[in-house]
Order: sequence, then structure tokens, then C-alpha cells
Amino acid sequence: MTRDEVTAEILAARLATGLTWQRLADAVDKPVLWTVAALLGQHPVPVEAAEVLVEMLGLDPAVVPVLAAVPMRGGLPTAVPTDPTIYRFYEVLQVYGGAIKEVIHEDFGDGIMSAINFSIDVQRKPHPDGDRVVVTLDGKFLPYAWTAAPE
Amino acid sequence: MTRDEVTAEILAARLATGLTWQRLADAVDKPVLWTVAALLGQHPVPVEAAEVLVEMLGLDPAVVPVLAAVPMRGGLPTAVPTDPTIYRFYEVLQVYGGAIKEVIHEDFGDGIMSAINFSIDVQRKPHPDGDRVVVTLDGKFLPYAWTAAPE
Amino acid sequence: MTRDEVTAEILAARLATGLTWQRLADAVDKPVLWTVAALLGQHPVPVEAAEVLVEMLGLDPAVVPVLAAVPMRGGLPTAVPTDPTIYRFYEVLQVYGGAIKEVIHEDFGDGIMSAINFSIDVQRKPHPDGDRVVVTLDGKFLPYAWTAAPE
Amino acid sequence: MTRDEVTAEILAARLATGLTWQRLADAVDKPVLWTVAALLGQHPVPVEAAEVLVEMLGLDPAVVPVLAAVPMRGGLPTAVPTDPTIYRFYEVLQVYGGAIKEVIHEDFGDGIMSAINFSIDVQRKPHPDGDRVVVTLDGKFLPYAWTAAPE
Amino acid sequence: MTRDEVTAEILAARLATGLTWQRLADAVDKPVLWTVAALLGQHPVPVEAAEVLVEMLGLDPAVVPVLAAVPMRGGLPTAVPTDPTIYRFYEVLQVYGGAIKEVIHEDFGDGIMSAINFSIDVQRKPHPDGDRVVVTLDGKFLPYAWTAAPE
Amino acid sequence: MTRDEVTAEILAARLATGLTWQRLADAVDKPVLWTVAALLGQHPVPVEAAEVLVEMLGLDPAVVPVLAAVPMRGGLPTAVPTDPTIYRFYEVLQVYGGAIKEVIHEDFGDGIMSAINFSIDVQRKPHPDGDRVVVTLDGKFLPYAWTAAPE
Amino acid sequence: MTRDEVTAEILAARLATGLTWQRLADAVDKPVLWTVAALLGQHPVPVEAAEVLVEMLGLDPAVVPVLAAVPMRGGLPTAVPTDPTIYRFYEVLQVYGGAIKEVIHEDFGDGIMSAINFSIDVQRKPHPDGDRVVVTLDGKFLPYAWTAAPE
Amino acid sequence: MTRDEVTAEILAARLATGLTWQRLADAVDKPVLWTVAALLGQHPVPVEAAEVLVEMLGLDPAVVPVLAAVPMRGGLPTAVPTDPTIYRFYEVLQVYGGAIKEVIHEDFGDGIMSAINFSIDVQRKPHPDGDRVVVTLDGKFLPYAWTAAPE
Amino acid sequence: MTRDEVTAEILAARLATGLTWQRLADAVDKPVLWTVAALLGQHPVPVEAAEVLVEMLGLDPAVVPVLAAVPMRGGLPTAVPTDPTIYRFYEVLQVYGGAIKEVIHEDFGDGIMSAINFSIDVQRKPHPDGDRVVVTLDGKFLPYAWTAAPE
Amino acid sequence: MTRDEVTAEILAARLATGLTWQRLADAVDKPVLWTVAALLGQHPVPVEAAEVLVEMLGLDPAVVPVLAAVPMRGGLPTAVPTDPTIYRFYEVLQVYGGAIKEVIHEDFGDGIMSAINFSIDVQRKPHPDGDRVVVTLDGKFLPYAWTAAPE
Repeated sequence: MTRDEVTAEILAARLATGLTWQRLADAVDKPVLWTVAALLGQHPVPVEAAEVLVEMLGLDPAVVPVLAAVPMRGGLPTAVPTDPTIYRFYEVLQVYGGAIKEVIHEDFGDGIMSAINFSIDVQRKPHPDGDRVVVTLDGKFLPYAWTAAPE
Repeated sequence: MTRDEVTAEILAARLATGLTWQRLADAVDKPVLWTVAALLGQHPVPVEAAEVLVEMLGLDPAVVPVLAAVPMRGGLPTAVPTDPTIYRFYEVLQVYGGAIKEVIHEDFGDGIMSAINFSIDVQRKPHPDGDRVVVTLDGKFLPYAWTAAPE
Repeated sequence: MTRDEVTAEILAARLATGLTWQRLADAVDKPVLWTVAALLGQHPVPVEAAEVLVEMLGLDPAVVPVLAAVPMRGGLPTAVPTDPTIYRFYEVLQVYGGAIKEVIHEDFGDGIMSAINFSIDVQRKPHPDGDRVVVTLDGKFLPYAWTAAPE
Repeated sequence: MTRDEVTAEILAARLATGLTWQRLADAVDKPVLWTVAALLGQHPVPVEAAEVLVEMLGLDPAVVPVLAAVPMRGGLPTAVPTDPTIYRFYEVLQVYGGAIKEVIHEDFGDGIMSAINFSIDVQRKPHPDGDRVVVTLDGKFLPYAWTAAPE
Repeated sequence: MTRDEVTAEILAARLATGLTWQRLADAVDKPVLWTVAALLGQHPVPVEAAEVLVEMLGLDPAVVPVLAAVPMRGGLPTAVPTDPTIYRFYEVLQVYGGAIKEVIHEDFGDGIMSAINFSIDVQRKPHPDGDRVVVTLDGKFLPYAWTAAPE
Repeated sequence: MTRDEVTAEILAARLATGLTWQRLADAVDKPVLWTVAALLGQHPVPVEAAEVLVEMLGLDPAVVPVLAAVPMRGGLPTAVPTDPTIYRFYEVLQVYGGAIKEVIHEDFGDGIMSAINFSIDVQRKPHPDGDRVVVTLDGKFLPYAWTAAPE
Repeated sequence: MTRDEVTAEILAARLATGLTWQRLADAVDKPVLWTVAALLGQHPVPVEAAEVLVEMLGLDPAVVPVLAAVPMRGGLPTAVPTDPTIYRFYEVLQVYGGAIKEVIHEDFGDGIMSAINFSIDVQRKPHPDGDRVVVTLDGKFLPYAWTAAPE
Repeated sequence: MTRDEVTAEILAARLATGLTWQRLADAVDKPVLWTVAALLGQHPVPVEAAEVLVEMLGLDPAVVPVLAAVPMRGGLPTAVPTDPTIYRFYEVLQVYGGAIKEVIHEDFGDGIMSAINFSIDVQRKPHPDGDRVVVTLDGKFLPYAWTAAPE
Repeated sequence: MTRDEVTAEILAARLATGLTWQRLADAVDKPVLWTVAALLGQHPVPVEAAEVLVEMLGLDPAVVPVLAAVPMRGGLPTAVPTDPTIYRFYEVLQVYGGAIKEVIHEDFGDGIMSAINFSIDVQRKPHPDGDRVVVTLDGKFLPYAWTAAPE
Repeated sequence: MTRDEVTAEILAARLATGLTWQRLADAVDKPVLWTVAALLGQHPVPVEAAEVLVEMLGLDPAVVPVLAAVPMRGGLPTAVPTDPTIYRFYEVLQVYGGAIKEVIHEDFGDGIMSAINFSIDVQRKPHPDGDRVVVTLDGKFLPYAWTAAPE
């Protein structure tokens, strides 16, 4: 059974059982965004957490080692996403990507925001004109550094 | 003169004058990310602000109406960005895009984070293991609503 | 069972039962275009409506929660549609997309027509030279607004 | 001088002169959307209209025959548009394209909405929750017909 | 059963039964090119014709409503065809497409050859240097016309 | 001067002089479609014909050897054409390409219609419901033949 | 059973039986390259040859008519091949394609090497620095000829 | 001056001077296909040869070091070539690529035909049914070998 | 059973059995990177090694000849890899590819690093700021050489 | 002047002056690969180094601030490189990318080799069968870590 097949089973089982992502995350004591990403096949799930989740979702325990392995990441079915909820983030990149780059370089120098030493959070924030989705990307700054292992 | 040509002139003039983005933003009293995005051709620049910026950068005042017009947006030269600093944000979308979608739907219901009623901010946050780039995307939640103008 | 599999079953069942889209829409008291889009996998179907439709089409009631979940949207099998009936709308975008943008900006200022707070209608209108397909896209104007949630 | 070069000159001249699209359309007594599409290089401009527009915009009269020739149409710089205002119409196609096709076939039989015998209109309609962009696509229904010229 | 699956069954059954396309076309009294296109999934097949063809090919009568429905058209597996027999027609478009456009505009004015009010024929014509494939595309001229349904 | 530059000059000169394609073709006693294709850069133009055309169009005689050289063919700016007049021929290929292939194989056996030993013609044919564009593709049948030069 | 499925069965059966391509080619008295291409789904296999091969490979005789039909050709899974052995031929095209074109035109005039009236051969040739793969492409020269069937 | 610009100048100068590729090749005593490939920007041209060619073509001697540098190779303007003369070689790859791979592996084992230790030749061979283009690709066989430099 | 199916079985069996890649490599006395590449379908596995691995993984011995055949290589599911661990190597190519080319040419002359006569190694090297991944690509230099087999 | 224009000037000036990359690197006391990458537009060049290089190459000192700015990185003209010397590294990724990923995960756990905290080196290593190109990629291991800035 491939990781993609396990992911499909998880999605079906979650809808059939009516479990929320939050409840699954709470059961394994992990942030909800991490948990959803992992269950969608983007992170390995530690064995103990996998065992809990597999039981809650009524899946075959044989999928635990598949969940625990580092997956082949990359979850968009097309290079440019077509789902409107996801597309807006791509649009942000089209409109603000260049500006983000310039501001990072002006504030930090040459380098990047790590997407590996990284966390992400989604919050609902009230606003008089309608609640807002506030997404926080938080990654370590990595300066370009020409380093080599000592001989 | 097209907007793209004006953008190229702005980039060259900024490097030649040594002005920081922050100073340009302060001069027109706008957030720095908005200012950079606008100068990179992603937003119209109000006439008064455009006049200030054009003078600071030593450009021909005839570009003001070009800056003030709504531009054709979309600033990435390729569908998948190749610059590492920008690519990491695309990678975040590949790895966490599905999870963001699920969490928005669980917290808000069916709908999207607006990228129009929207602001974005980049902050440098200290951390014992190295400073962090914290990017906040803040967009109004728009629920899917089947609405029509009254007859 | 994935949403795509449910969609394929719905299409087959509709042809086998000979039900029109209009009759399915009437049974759940929804606009026909919304109903077809939803049954093609582009909108979640509220549980009560899903139960009615599933029974009319003779499907397994276990698909109701799948229909009720927010789907991964985006229904074109290729980035540029090949079906002639759908392609004409893409052609309209190629020929008139720039003009629509300019006119929206001249009439409303900088912003977009929402595709979320949105409805769409198809009508048959008589004309001496042959009946006409009149498609009305009706979306809320969203002005570009640099807004943030209050701290 | 190619049509693309003429289009670029028109765009620059319109911003420099401050003329609205509506005023240009009124001057040649044409619908505004048709006029903008034509000036963006998507339709031939009849000679008399071209002469009026060229004078208003202060262009070289030698461009009139270029404007009057049938252009190579297709105005999007990428297959999937990146400008948010234009993208929303592509998104409508992704989400509702299949439904539009089904409803056209149910209401008219097998065939298409013509994009040639066609007009398009953008209106601002008031709504208590905010004004709406209402775009009307109006094309002749063309039934699939297996016809040949008589021998 | 989807239309694609029915098409695959038709192809297999035709080879297994040894029926020619011409004989299938004669049985339903339709032009051979129309018949092949329809059986390859590009046109709806009227119920009576579908019943005849399904019986000749030994298929399950339950596929008749699938054949009778308007299909999602577009039969090339890749945007640029790789099969040499089909590719030559794409090559004709690459080499002569611009010239066809210019000649249509010079002879008819601005407009297109309809591919909907259209028929196509393939004939074998003798020639001293070897027989020739003569393909006739015959479509109604549609002039660009800015028309709207009366209010 | 490259062939593409010469083509652009020809297009501009033709509009400026008001010469029809037919008159250019008559002047060199060639079929109009061949002449247009050649002037659009898809065929070499024999020196004598090139000299005539260059003089009629008022171009620099130095372009004659460029016109006389075999060009790099392939005239569509995108793999899938966006111009509606040209697109319809691509659509014909999408809808009827498979059927053309099957009928050629049934009538001629395994092989192709040559696009090299080939001519093409566009005619205006009257029809009670509106004149028709009749395009005739006429290519030598080339059977697949496993042949080698004698040793 | 589709041709692709038959091809997959042939590949599996060849490995299971341990038959060489050469032995399969000898059994039907055909050149080995033709035989492999045909068994990979690129040529129809005459019935008698198909019967021999099907028996040698232990396949179901029902696949014979599938093998005997003209296939949809084009065997690369991606437009640019990724397998290194095949890629080198694509690289040859990238590096020498323009030169081959120029030399064909200088030696033969305007036209092409046919890929239909064509054979191909692979030989192992000894060389002091290591044996060489010598691939001979041998196609009839087809001059561009504007020919039509007589009326 | 970039290599691409030098190539464009060479092409123009060759047509203006009427020099054949063969004569250019003879002047530098190199195979004609190598010479054409090099002049089209695919190989460095040794300084002495470059000096001869530059003088024959009447170019500025300053381009000699540009010609002598190793170029960025890859001469096709699109991934799939559109010029018919070049396309046929791509088609050969589509139809025979898999078979070439299998035969190389059967005759030589696992490995490739080098495109670096390689030569190519085009010959005109007579045949009763019409002269043939015979292209010989001749590359060293390179077996897959897991080798490393000694420590 | 195709090689892709065997690869999927190997991946599942490895996770189920908990065997490390290193242990599988040791069992057949091969470098670990070679072994993983081979088991992922990129190299043929010699029969004796295949028999050992198949037994360790508990697979059907019938897959041995499939493993022993030269595979169709090329293991990335998309042209640009989306998995972050693999993407970084593509990024290295984007940022340093041009420089690698220049340095190879300066140090060795015109030619390439072979990817066939080639080995690759991954080592963990300690560093005070964190351990480093050191990947060594080691390929034979192949100078461009215009060589042909003797007649 | 854009960075791309500066890069083109650098390339031309280096060929005209005959300076080696090594000498340019030595003059600024930097590793040669870093220097070439920077001069090809992939890294900012510190002002002092830029001043030295600009003088050696005879460029306008006004380009120094352009060289000193962080560039938009990504130097391949196409997503899949066509130059053979560069392509081999892409091929390595196609053949060994999956294996590299697995071995990194087995040796280090979940994470990546950084391409930012990174150096690269190309060495010529002797070997009895021919000198070898040895490329060492040396990047810090970054473990996936779900970290956030403290509130």
C-alpha cells in the first residue's frame, strides 16, 4: 500500500467517522496544521501517533510503517493550483513575491526564510468588516553562507 | 513607456541612488511591503505618492500616470518561481496548501482567504537558534455565497 | 470513496435514470447551475439535499458525507479546455479579458469581481436570427484594500 | 509597425492624455467593451473610427491601416492568466465550466454559445452588501449541424 | 460506466468482430466520418442508432444512454499530437494556419469558419504519381457580429 | 536581417500599400494560399518572384536572398493557437482527428497524408443558410514502407 | 483489451520466457528494429506474424486482431525523454538538428527526409577506442511540391 | 556581442554572400555537418578556423573569441520542433526510440550511445523510387559503469 | 508485472519488513546509493543480487527477470521536482549550473562529466555548526570528439 | 541597466579580454565556482570585489551597485536544461534523485541538504581510464523542525 493510497483511505475514513481535524490533532497532542499536513501525506507520522490515529479512523494497523516513513512531498495536483482556496496563496506569491524577497533582503541581507525549520499557523481574527483569516509563516532566516565540511 | 519599462527604471534608479525601500515607503507614508509591491508594478501608485517617489528616484515626471494606472498584475517570470527566496513560499504551498485549505474550512466553513481585502507583513523575530522571518498573511474570510444583484 | 468517484457515479446514474438536471435541482429547491456544479464536484452539498439526491439517483447513502464535505475544486481536465462548448468561454477571456479588466477599473476603481460571493445564470433568449445563450456572471465588487486584523 | 506596437502606443497615449475608455468609445459611437477590446488589439477598427481615435490619442495617422486590419487575436500573455481581476473569470470556468456545458445541452441540445456572433457587457449593479459587477455574455446558440455546401 | 470506458469497449469490439467503420456507418445511414467520430466519443449518438450499433458490436444495451448523451469533447491525448497520421494535420496548421486566416479575411471579411455548423469528408483521389488523400473541411462562415438579445 | 524581421516588414508594407494578397499572388502567378504562406515566412520564395514582390511592397532588394532561402518553418506563436479563426482548425483536429486517422487507414491502409507533397485551397461556397468556407487539404498518400537505400 | 495493455503483456511475457528480440524477429523473418517497434505498439503486426509471436510468448490468441490494427503511434511517455539511452538522440536533435536541416536543403533542395518511407538500423561497429553504436536513418527525400488531385 | 547575435549575423552574411555551407566547410577543412553545427552556435570554432570564416563572411574580427568559446548548446526554439524537416527526426524518436533502446541493450548490454564522442553524416543515396536521405549517427558505446576516482 | 509495479512492491515490503537500505545493500555487497537507485527502478539488478533481495523482501521470485532487465530510466514524477529534499539539488542546478559548465570548460576544455561512467556518494560530515550532507558526483570527463567507426 | 544586461556585458568582456575565470577569482580572493556563479548573476558581489572585477573587465563603474544587489536567482533558460554539459546533472537527478533522498533520510532522518548554507567544488581527478570530473556538493543538514518565534 502506497502513501497515496493511505492518504485516500484517511480522507474517506475521516468523513465517514465525522472526526474533526482538531480532534485528531488533540488526540496526538500536535498542532492542527502539522497534523493535517501529515495526514495528507506531507510529513512522516511518529509511530505512536500513527497508532492512535489509525485506531481512531478504523484503518488497518499495517499502514503504520507507511505513515511513519518520510514521504515524497509535494501535494498540489497541478503546478498552478486550481482550487480557489489554495489559489489565493499562489496569487499572493504572484503579487507580493517580489516584494517579500526585497524586504527580506533589506531586513536580513542575502538569504531565505527556511521552509524546513518552519511552522505555520492559521487563526480566525475578528474584524468589524468581517472575520479574517490570518496565516503566519514562521521560518528561520538562513543567510547565504559558503561553507564546507572540514577536510 | 510601459509599466514594465517604468519598473525596470525604478529598480535601476534605486540601486544608483542607494535609497532603501523603507525610506521610499516612509516618504509616502505607506507600509513597506505595499510600497515595494507597488514599485515592482503590482499596485497603482496614487498620483501624489508617485510624484514624491519619481522625484526621489530622479525619474521623468511623465511616468506618473503610468504608475497611477491599475497595472496588469502577476510578477513571477515563470509559473514555478526559480529564485530560492521566493521558491520557499511556493514550497510551503506544495507542502501545507492542502492543510491550510482543510483548516480554513474546519474553522470558517466553505470559503477563502481574500487576497484583495488583504495585507501582508514581514517581521524579523529573534530566536535563540537564529532570527526568524515571520510573514503574516491577513485576508478577510469570504464565505461562498450564491448572491445576485436584485432585478 | 473519493469525491471524484462519487461524481462519476452521479453522472452514470443520471444517464441511467434519465433524470434531468432541472428536476434534480427542483427536488432540492436550488438554482440549476448551482446544483449541476455541486453534483459535478465543485460545491459541498448540504446533508439534507444530498440525502434527497442520493435517493433519487439510487446511490449508496454512505456517499452523503463525501458530498457534504468541501471539495477540492477545479473541474477542467486540462489548463486550456478542449471541449468546444467550454472552450468558447476561454476564448471570450482571450479576446475580451483585457477589456473587461479595463472597464471594471474605469467603472469601479482597482479591484475584482468576486468569484466567491457570486452567482451565475444561463438563459435562453429569443432573437429573430436564432435563440441566444445569455450567461450572466454576477459577483460582488471587491476593492483592493490593505486591511489587517486589529492587534 | 506591428499591431502589438500600436497597442502599446495606444496604452501609453491614453494614460498620457488622461482620456477615459468611455470617452474614446463615445467619440466613435461604439459600446465601450467593444472599443477597449479593439484598442487592445482584439478587433479591427473601421477606418473612420480609427482616424478619430488616432487623432484623439495624438498618434501617427500611418497606424490607421494597421488598426483597420484583422488582428491576430488572443490577448492573454500566459495560458492561465495571472492578473487577479482576469483570473477570477478563469476560476469561474474551472468551477462552473462543466455546469454551464450541461445546462446549455439540457436547455438547447448539442451545441455551443457562439463567441463570434456575440456581445458582452459589464454593468455596475447596486446591492445592500456592496455593488456588484454583472457581466453578461450573449452569444447565438449554434447547434451542431453536419452541413455541407451543395455540389 | 463513463463514455471513455464505452469508447474503449467499442474499439475492442470492432477489432474482435472485424466490422469496418463503413459497415457500421451504413447500418445507421450516417456519413462514415461522423460515425467514427461519434463512436470515438466526440458526438452523441441518437438512441435508435446507438441501439443498432450496440447490438452489432455485442455490447451491453445499458451503454445506450451514455452514447446518447452529449460527451465532453476533445480527443487528442496530448496538446500536440504524436501519431504521425494525425500530426500532419497539426503541421498543416503550423505551416498554413496564418495563410488560411489571411485568405478567409480577404475573401469573407472578419470572421471564422464554423467548426460546429460543419462537415468533413475524406476521399481517395487517383493521381499519376500516387493516390491522394483529399480532406474537405466545410464550415459556415460566421462573421464577427456584435449582437445582443433584445431586452 | 532575419526572415522574421523580413516577414514583419512585409506585413507592414502590405497594409501601408493596401495591396491584396490576391494581387500579390497574381503578380507572381502563384496560388494565393501558397503566396501568403510564403510571405508569412513558411516557404522559400524563388528569386524572380521575390524580386517582383519586394518591388511591389517597396522593400530593400537586399531581402531577396533571405526570402529565397528555405526558412525555419512553424508559424504558430503558441502550441495551441489562440486566434479564433485559426483555433477552429485545431478544434477540428481535437474532435475529428481520431476519425480522420481511422478512415485513412480503412480506405488506404497504414500510412499518412503527406503535408509536403501537398496543396491547400480555400473557397467561398454559397449555401442558402449562409456562405461556407470550404478548405481542401490535398496530400499524397504515403504508405508506411520499410525501405533502405541499396548498399 | 487495448493495444497498450497488449504491449505491457508482451513486455512481461518476453522477460518471463527469456526470449531475445532477435529470436522473435527471426521467427517472423523481419528486421529486428521493425519487430521491436511493432511489439512496442508502434506498427501493426500482420496476422500471420502476430499468430507466431503470440504463440511464442504464450499470449491469448484474442490479441491478434489488436496487434494487426494500425495503432495510435507515439511511444515516449514525456515530450522530452528522460531515459538516458533515448535522451541522447534527443540531444543530437538539439545540437545537430539545425545543421541537418541546412545540409539536407543544400544537398537536396527544399524538402524533408520521410519518416514513413523509412527504415532504421542499429549496428555494433568495432573501434580501437571502444565499440560504437552506429544508427542509420534511411528515408526517402520528399521535395516540397504543391500538387493537387486532378479535378 | 553574444553568441546568438553572432549566429544571426553569420546566417545573414551567408545568404548575402551566397556562400554554400560546403564551401565554408572546405575552407576550414572540416566535415560539413560539424561546420554548420558550429556556425549555428553549437560548437566552439577553433581560432584559426574562426578567422578564416569571419573573413569569408565579412564579419568583424572581434567576434572570433566569441566563436572560439564553448557555447551554451541546445538549438531548438521549442521542446518539440515545429519545422517539418527537423520534426521528422523527433517523430523517429517517438516511433522508434523505445526499439532503439531495446536493441542497444540486447546488442551491447546496459549503456548508451555517446552524443559527445560522436559524429554524424548526411548522404544522398540513389534509389529507383527516389533518392534517399541517409543519416548516420555514430557514437561510442558507453556502458553503465560505477566508477570513482581513486582516493 | 511491470517494473513500476515491482518498485511499488519493493517500497511497501521494505517498510513492512523494516529493513534498512544499508542492510539490503550489504546483503548484495553493493554501494548503498547504487542499491537504492536500482531498487527504485533506475538500474538493472543482476540475477543473483535480485534473488537475494527478493527473498529478503518476501516478494514473488517471478519478479527477478523484471528486476534484471534494463529499465526505462527517469524517476522524477514531474520535470521540476516538488519534494523539498530533491528540489534542493534542482536549485543547485539553477544557481550553479552555469558556473559548473564554465569551470569544467576552463579546467578540461569542451566536454562533459559523464553520468554513465559515474558514481555518486552521500556522506555525513561533522561540522561545528551542524552536520553536513556531502554529495560527491564523480564522472569521467568526456571531451567532445568527432569520431566515426572505420569504414 | 538590469543585472541580466550586466551579465551579458561581463561575458562579452571576459572573452574580449581573454581573462580566465580563475584569474578573476584570484583577483578577489574567492573560490572560483562562487566567483563564476556571482558573475553569471547568481550572487551579489561585495562592493570592493565588484570594483576590482569591473576594472579588470573594463566595464562602467556604474554597474557596481547592480552587481552588489541581491539578484533574482535562477539561471537556466528552460526548466529542463538543453546544454549537454548541464543536462548531465539533471539526468543525475532523474536517475539518482530518489536514491539520494532515501539515503539522506536513512542517515540523517527527515530533512534536507541546504542549498543556502552550501558550497560546491569541481575538481579534476586523475584515473587510469581518463581524468574525472568530481563535483562535491556540501550543504548543512537541516532537519524538519516545527519551530516558531517566541511570542
